[in-house]
Amino acid sequence: MYKLVLIRHGESTWNLENRFTGWTDVDLTATGLEQAKNAGRLLKAEGYDFDLAYTSVLKRATRTLWHTLDEMDRTWLPVVHSWRLNERHYGALQGLNKAEVAKQYGDEQVLIWRRSYDTPPPALEPNDLRCERHDRRYEKLGPNEVPLTECLKDTVARVLPFWNESMAPAIRAGKRVVVAAHGNSIRALVKYLDGVSDTDIVNLNIPNGIPLVYELDAALQPIRSHYLGDPEAIAKAAAAVAAQGKA
Amino acid sequence: MYKLVLIRHGESTWNLENRFTGWTDVDLTATGLEQAKNAGRLLKAEGYDFDLAYTSVLKRATRTLWHTLDEMDRTWLPVVHSWRLNERHYGALQGLNKAEVAKQYGDEQVLIWRRSYDTPPPALEPNDLRCERHDRRYEKLGPNEVPLTECLKDTVARVLPFWNESMAPAIRAGKRVVVAAHGNSIRALVKYLDGVSDTDIVNLNIPNGIPLVYELDAALQPIRSHYLGDPEAIAKAAAAVAAQGKA
Repeated sequence: MYKLVLIRHGESTWNLENRFTGWTDVDLTATGLEQAKNAGRLLKAEGYDFDLAYTSVLKRATRTLWHTLDEMDRTWLPVVHSWRLNERHYGALQGLNKAEVAKQYGDEQVLIWRRSYDTPPPALEPNDLRCERHDRRYEKLGPNEVPLTECLKDTVARVLPFWNESMAPAIRAGKRVVVAAHGNSIRALVKYLDGVSDTDIVNLNIPNGIPLVYELDAALQPIRSHYLGDPEAIAKAAAAVAAQGKA
Repeated sequence: MYKLVLIRHGESTWNLENRFTGWTDVDLTATGLEQAKNAGRLLKAEGYDFDLAYTSVLKRATRTLWHTLDEMDRTWLPVVHSWRLNERHYGALQGLNKAEVAKQYGDEQVLIWRRSYDTPPPALEPNDLRCERHDRRYEKLGPNEVPLTECLKDTVARVLPFWNESMAPAIRAGKRVVVAAHGNSIRALVKYLDGVSDTDIVNLNIPNGIPLVYELDAALQPIRSHYLGDPEAIAKAAAAVAAQGKA
């Protein structure tokens, strides 16, 4: 039996400002930093240990990982960064206030953009200053591999190859893996692991900074999964995510 | 032509307390943290950029690297940790106050232990609580590969294979490399790159937190090397290192 731990990054400045973030590289707030440290303390207190860490190329996830590992005295662990673990790309909504967008387009449209499985938000123009195609960290990707927008289905499609080619083999090789990533890259993994339907994934919310533990069998099928920590705090954190983006 | 940047970690708590540190995993002081950030700011201001980072498995070097990369907005760079970049092992002196040891054994003996090329300090007993042989991060090393003490010659002997097998090939492949390491692992690299004699290396001091830039030719021979930043501050920092360990 294997264990896999997934952690959504702590609160970011744009979580706090209620703005669509996507691939924009915003940092953690002081609260987010504290959530990351708490995740590390909790994992340490519960006797977890790791051999390998994964994160995205976005600093809110990397910094969450750093603080988690720091609290566990595991700053020396190998860390693999991949753009495939990035947050879902939010297209032309990146940077806009969720409540203002909801006022303009209506709660229902925003909920579709936020939670529909296969409807992406409006795409960024390639010459939009917000477009990441000229960012050094993506320079080795193919010209059309850097998205201009993504629905969750698109995110799943780019997360799963990385799961299959890097994460799953590492877990099978006996490495204890921790992943610090994003709401939607974690939803992509959860959808795949738990076989969640395209419909039900809409209602699944990942709270910030709370370790989600999967126990996997030899075929990497989940035996069970649970969040670490106080159940009431976890429910409250998940509800807060669900409530974002209402006018 | 290639560029290679070496950074000794910022001031550690035991630099400040004037204690022999070696493989003991002490953290940075607030000053050390600031030195690390300054290194990053300086590198960024001078237009440096990197593709790959190396550090030891000790947190004072890792944290120096993290803060340097953070200031450069390069938190997503791949980082390779290796015990081969660790500080020289200080044997039974680890944890002892440099000035007190000097009082007991004399300045001359301490200078020999600190700076002789081939005389190691007294060895740790394998059952000494300070011995690192049961530390998880060294568990894959052979039973005699974790040192009980080292002279600089020993440090050179375990740094160079890593240079030859990992760092040099990466540089030859065109990767711009930054290394955050320790006084003696950096001296080992400098000794090798510059062909410094066993006698002359004794007088070479590496200041904390100041980027040392090597320009290397196609055969990785140094064309020139220099510290980044204010020359007066650099000289002062190197003199401070040289003055440690006097009674």
